Amino acid sequence: MDAALLAPAAGLDVFLAEAAALLPPDALLRGDACAPYQADASNCRGQAAAVLLPSDAAAVSALLRAAVRHRARLVPQGNLSGLVGGAVPDGSGRQVALSLARMRRLRAFDPLNRSAVAEAGMPLSELNRQLEPHNLWLPIDVGSDPAVGGLVGANTGGSRLLRHGDVRRNLLGLEVVLADENGSVLDLTAPLRKNNAGIDLKQLFVGSGGALGVVTAASWDLKRRDASTLTLFAALPGREAALAMLDACEQRFGEMLSAFEVMGAPALAVTLRHVPALRHPLADSPAGCYALVEIASAMPGLDALLREQAESLLAGLHQRGLVADAAFARPEALWPLRDSLPLALAAEGLPLSFDVGLPRSRLPAFHAAAERWLASEHPALRLYDFGHFGDGGCHLIALLPREHAAAYGPAKLAVLKSGLYRLVAEHGGSFSAEHGVGPLNAAFYRKFADAGAQRLAAGLQRLLDPAAALGRHRYD
Amino acid sequence: MDAALLAPAAGLDVFLAEAAALLPPDALLRGDACAPYQADASNCRGQAAAVLLPSDAAAVSALLRAAVRHRARLVPQGNLSGLVGGAVPDGSGRQVALSLARMRRLRAFDPLNRSAVAEAGMPLSELNRQLEPHNLWLPIDVGSDPAVGGLVGANTGGSRLLRHGDVRRNLLGLEVVLADENGSVLDLTAPLRKNNAGIDLKQLFVGSGGALGVVTAASWDLKRRDASTLTLFAALPGREAALAMLDACEQRFGEMLSAFEVMGAPALAVTLRHVPALRHPLADSPAGCYALVEIASAMPGLDALLREQAESLLAGLHQRGLVADAAFARPEALWPLRDSLPLALAAEGLPLSFDVGLPRSRLPAFHAAAERWLASEHPALRLYDFGHFGDGGCHLIALLPREHAAAYGPAKLAVLKSGLYRLVAEHGGSFSAEHGVGPLNAAFYRKFADAGAQRLAAGLQRLLDPAAALGRHRYD
Repeated sequence: MDAALLAPAAGLDVFLAEAAALLPPDALLRGDACAPYQADASNCRGQAAAVLLPSDAAAVSALLRAAVRHRARLVPQGNLSGLVGGAVPDGSGRQVALSLARMRRLRAFDPLNRSAVAEAGMPLSELNRQLEPHNLWLPIDVGSDPAVGGLVGANTGGSRLLRHGDVRRNLLGLEVVLADENGSVLDLTAPLRKNNAGIDLKQLFVGSGGALGVVTAASWDLKRRDASTLTLFAALPGREAALAMLDACEQRFGEMLSAFEVMGAPALAVTLRHVPALRHPLADSPAGCYALVEIASAMPGLDALLREQAESLLAGLHQRGLVADAAFARPEALWPLRDSLPLALAAEGLPLSFDVGLPRSRLPAFHAAAERWLASEHPALRLYDFGHFGDGGCHLIALLPREHAAAYGPAKLAVLKSGLYRLVAEHGGSFSAEHGVGPLNAAFYRKFADAGAQRLAAGLQRLLDPAAALGRHRYD
Repeated sequence: MDAALLAPAAGLDVFLAEAAALLPPDALLRGDACAPYQADASNCRGQAAAVLLPSDAAAVSALLRAAVRHRARLVPQGNLSGLVGGAVPDGSGRQVALSLARMRRLRAFDPLNRSAVAEAGMPLSELNRQLEPHNLWLPIDVGSDPAVGGLVGANTGGSRLLRHGDVRRNLLGLEVVLADENGSVLDLTAPLRKNNAGIDLKQLFVGSGGALGVVTAASWDLKRRDASTLTLFAALPGREAALAMLDACEQRFGEMLSAFEVMGAPALAVTLRHVPALRHPLADSPAGCYALVEIASAMPGLDALLREQAESLLAGLHQRGLVADAAFARPEALWPLRDSLPLALAAEGLPLSFDVGLPRSRLPAFHAAAERWLASEHPALRLYDFGHFGDGGCHLIALLPREHAAAYGPAKLAVLKSGLYRLVAEHGGSFSAEHGVGPLNAAFYRKFADAGAQRLAAGLQRLLDPAAALGRHRYD
């Protein structure tokens, strides 16, 4: 279907001529100038017919109207921090990148309502920089720096989802430009916490990767910044013990448990081997895995109490054989242990990454099954993990030693990936926890998403984008 | 359009004959037996052609398939605790009530994942009763007792939204039966906190009042129950002071601020006049309004600290002239002061209720404007309010003295309501904060919802329910 709907060459030329008339000269890039807009953080590469850089929603509307008329395909993109290629034009040279990078204003800020309306191209770091003097923030915590539109398109989760939720939970409203014949601008940005006056249409666009409309601004439910924080690192015999420790932490700290990250001992070992600046906080304790735990509150003055309670909790867990050893340290000393693994692994071989989500109660069984399966079916590969254990998110990396790379062509890699996702499905999980769907994992969407859900998603896309004018990934 | 799509009498008879063959004899009610299913908590009344009481999703699917084929209209209903008539069949006697009351099993419970899957007919109170021994709950706090399906259909908010969010924020998944020709059952109940493997279809059904599909089960992100709680009542000069106090409470207690409810002095006075069992906690302090504040955490052992911090905070607010006086008391002593107003007002005259949502920063200005407008345009009416000030939700009641009732016929009432909603819109608010859309406020949806949003909602309903087989309120 895609091929039939792609713009015939003439249509694309007419569209680009119209786009040139709609935009200032420096807002339409061709040729080599497009290079920075043709790859994302996963290094998924494509080739854009052109890059459009509109400065406001009216320009986006005019461009989308023209794209619908001439059957051009626009691929919305923000800061290109995605990991599945969803914001990258394909390799045909006939898709057009629609970059929101020039829409980066803070349109509204209401400290007493704890809300702000930010345009789609504003990077998360910039939004939080502007909010910091007011002791407020958008508490989405990821290693990269997505723009507002990318946050919405991917429904970003991150390391502190346990306490703060994902993007959807922090969102009050959206402005969206629709791919209808008018390029209608839907203004749903009212910063209301209670609003059930009809179907909540903005939800459609969260996590759908720009496939149903172009997000041009978002209205946020801001939070007070943390005023009390405790970070600790614990050595555990294994993942069943991690689950018990997680449960005990929640019973002791309730909603103040901010992050509960677990990494296997092999993952920590390889990280320490390749990042010499890092020190092992618990080098003398044998462990099957490690937990990085953060307890925090926006209420000031709790630091001493949190420390005292954590010490008594850890003592009890140690007595039960659930924690071998533990250390308190500043966040800056601990988080790099967790965040440096991907880089370390890249120095060691060819990392094949999986971003999966499971019921957290099934993480230990899933991990054991994945290790067994890999040992039996793909003995050359080793399994590493560093995950958001507390919310069931799990970043798995199967490391392919360079000497075996030749044996793993595209077909064999696809079989390997499918086999691992099959295990995820058998344990009730999702093949894409927080990276969304794009060309890099679209085949697994076809294979693992519920058939009825796929039909409904396709119907939604046909309803919202009948001319197939939008998005790299298509649901129809 | 509705009339054309309604079942011709023959179609309805054939549908009911098929339904009778699909269900056990006691699961299809006719005539007088339908009475308990024909009115909701607002006393909106209708007349059902029949009431269907399926016991599982397969039966709902078969019924919906038959309804689509014969163009019968089913109105899904749960515990009938709604306040806009959205679950009540109309007065034609040709709509069929589809009660989920017999689907009330807890299908799954996973304490380590803090999740449960409950069927649509299970009342909230029953769900929480079963969870209590595990120190878990679904923290939606409303005066009534909606069933799980009603919670989802209305996206219930309640008094503790500030800390716990609305239904959407606590929802992990849904099972939905679609109004397509197969009555497809969409199983999206996997209890995953991170899952972005495609468009999040369950979001469509949250807050859409059964208009897009029949929710048969929901998967919940449970929370630990409160282990530390502080409740206080404060007398304030007015609503600007309430806003300053809210901000100060958030700065001091962060995410532990659980509820911040405000009621005007006239509302408290009328409550105390009609409910003799209640005592005024601050009878000696003149005040423009009162705040009921709850600070709570699932972390045990904080009671003394919360009390100490609240005392110092209140002392500071008193010095700044923002709080006249305050008292601490057990929750059971304070919440009835807030919850008894509707009943008290009904004893005083004819209450006209408005459930509106605003940016909380604009609540003081909105309230002042509403009082001015009512005094000038409708001097016979008096304005009372008790609201979820902390989340911008506001329950306004315009009290019509009985002696003026004759002067307020349906046309004049519609003008009055429209005028008040116009003020809400001018202050950036919503005409339905938490009660949804139904026959009692459908006219205001047409008037106040964004035109583009209405078109998209209609398109969604046509996509999901092309035979108009579902729902009391229609978006198309």
